Amino acid sequence: MRFEINKDKLLYHLIIAQKALSNKTPNPALQGIKLDVKKDHLVMTTSNSDISINITLDDASLKVEEEGSVLIPGKYFIEIVRKLDGQNVSMSHIDDNLLRIEADHSDITLNMLELDDYPNLVFKQKDDYVKINVRTLKTIIRQSAFATSTIENRPILTGVNFKIDGNRLTSVATDSYRLAQKTIELDDEYDPMQVIIPGKSLEELMKILENNQDNVEIHFDQSRVLFKYNNVLFLSRLLEGNYPETGKLIPQEFPVKIKFNKESLLTSIERASLLSSKDGHNAIVKLELRQDDTVEISSNSPEIGRVLEEVYPVDEVVGSPIKIAFSSKYISEALKVFASSEVIISFTGEIRPFVITGEYDPDMIQLILPVKTD
Amino acid sequence: MRFEINKDKLLYHLIIAQKALSNKTPNPALQGIKLDVKKDHLVMTTSNSDISINITLDDASLKVEEEGSVLIPGKYFIEIVRKLDGQNVSMSHIDDNLLRIEADHSDITLNMLELDDYPNLVFKQKDDYVKINVRTLKTIIRQSAFATSTIENRPILTGVNFKIDGNRLTSVATDSYRLAQKTIELDDEYDPMQVIIPGKSLEELMKILENNQDNVEIHFDQSRVLFKYNNVLFLSRLLEGNYPETGKLIPQEFPVKIKFNKESLLTSIERASLLSSKDGHNAIVKLELRQDDTVEISSNSPEIGRVLEEVYPVDEVVGSPIKIAFSSKYISEALKVFASSEVIISFTGEIRPFVITGEYDPDMIQLILPVKTD
Repeated sequence: MRFEINKDKLLYHLIIAQKALSNKTPNPALQGIKLDVKKDHLVMTTSNSDISINITLDDASLKVEEEGSVLIPGKYFIEIVRKLDGQNVSMSHIDDNLLRIEADHSDITLNMLELDDYPNLVFKQKDDYVKINVRTLKTIIRQSAFATSTIENRPILTGVNFKIDGNRLTSVATDSYRLAQKTIELDDEYDPMQVIIPGKSLEELMKILENNQDNVEIHFDQSRVLFKYNNVLFLSRLLEGNYPETGKLIPQEFPVKIKFNKESLLTSIERASLLSSKDGHNAIVKLELRQDDTVEISSNSPEIGRVLEEVYPVDEVVGSPIKIAFSSKYISEALKVFASSEVIISFTGEIRPFVITGEYDPDMIQLILPVKTD
Repeated sequence: MRFEINKDKLLYHLIIAQKALSNKTPNPALQGIKLDVKKDHLVMTTSNSDISINITLDDASLKVEEEGSVLIPGKYFIEIVRKLDGQNVSMSHIDDNLLRIEADHSDITLNMLELDDYPNLVFKQKDDYVKINVRTLKTIIRQSAFATSTIENRPILTGVNFKIDGNRLTSVATDSYRLAQKTIELDDEYDPMQVIIPGKSLEELMKILENNQDNVEIHFDQSRVLFKYNNVLFLSRLLEGNYPETGKLIPQEFPVKIKFNKESLLTSIERASLLSSKDGHNAIVKLELRQDDTVEISSNSPEIGRVLEEVYPVDEVVGSPIKIAFSSKYISEALKVFASSEVIISFTGEIRPFVITGEYDPDMIQLILPVKTD
């Protein structure tokens, strides 16, 4: 194996491949980047227990003198390429399973890992895939995945439920204290189906997706999902089991509706959360709709002090006075994913879930369960 | 106590005061910011076991309605002021030792700490102080303090030795493996004296000093040093004991001298340090002056691989071939404080300290002890 390539191009793709690199793993082969050098392109592969990445690189700068495959210690290789001087880097497989890396006045030799120990990964593309604009995909992930559970006692809730029905794709996430749901329209029609994708996989996928006009192909399989984005294949395992029926959790009737300036509500809640009693790790904040239709956001921590904020709804309030308490983290995270600068909070009752929606965020619902206080 | 002030001005000075705030301390009073409100100015005081800060604030926006003193929980207070909306903030001491903070639509009450528990700190200015330009002071600290020891087994080496003699100020730091020394000229003449200032105190002082034309007054005392920088008084304890006589450690005769481009030497050493054997936490790198006057920088880690870098001296080399090994951390840190783009490394022998100097860094010496290798 022997080839030369533009160093920056190589590094750019190594940084993508790194997202699936295992740092601590019982299988040392997974600390490696598998590099397959073909006549006119390179293929890089990385994998950990959750995701695998496969990149095909056929840059104009690539000059292959000899084909071959190697398994390179990922962390060291990326650190080295990052620090190299010069425009191009050349690599060759030399005796004793060594990789020689030459660039500018540097001559580096790296011990390689055992290629035979690398698992056989299949990045199978199907004929019937879902096509989606990358920015739409990013939006739907950003507006839902944050609400997944991070604790493992109900593993299914660490995933995001992707449901397709006709030309509609809905993504739902909940940790049982709050729920985020977003629906978008696809260009084509598909048969109904649903899968549960680990939230962490989507978090890594987000780091790879850019803000351009490209499309992403989603290839669903029995136990895996493959995202194809230009020259990158991103494979994630799926979570097994039945996702809870979340539709019935969302109230349909809202006797109280208040429209807020999102930013001023958010900063008031953030200030209140500084001095608040804690429910576990969550700062608890109270919201009260007063008789005069102004809103009071407040918190109280007997040892430290208290905060009282007045917030003025931006529109006429619907409904009668109400008092409700909630985790400031849940409402802050929900507010932050809105594109709308004004949001409507709709209440059903003082101990019933409330819902946040926004005019410029169609088909998105952020639902939060209040907490009981004295 | 009751006053109003521009919020940003207050925050700017709170962030300076925060540098001396204790987070964990056996004395809870030291978690507080002492605020003395006078007719036409505020005084803020903070202190931990090493440093104390005293700021006089007489901004045009300040309107004092009632004088008084309070001790405010520092961390919460700064977080609150940081998050407040509105241009001005007003504060008043209300019943039950509470501080009321009002800004825009926020009304916040903070439990105060016991003012009587606060230590009596004296920020005494003397008639005979040393005057130094703030940028010169920053340079001398930046070029020496990094070489202090971070381990406490020889406490004296955690400090920087400031020596004044006539119109010369010399600062020296060493952790016994490397030494940094810089001398500058003062505008005035002073009686000879020397003190040892904790490196950590100087690190905090650096965060406060800006890049302007102002002067700093240094008031030396028996056991303390006071830096006066505009409206800020910065007090540090001194280290007791005798600083080692470092002058005799610096070789005077150098049979080998090599001039390098600083940047290319630095990047070669950084690459070599990626794959190197470790001496404790330090990556060991080798330098060899070859017969043909080129220089080889190399490292070798049998399990991982090896790096070989060729570096070309920028001028004719003085002396005969030499091989030397050193900690890459020490040489990198030393190289980074040079203003010169070319540096001269002067060697006495393979197991003797070597010295780095630069044309545009007058009166600065960076000395490094090599390590023995096979």
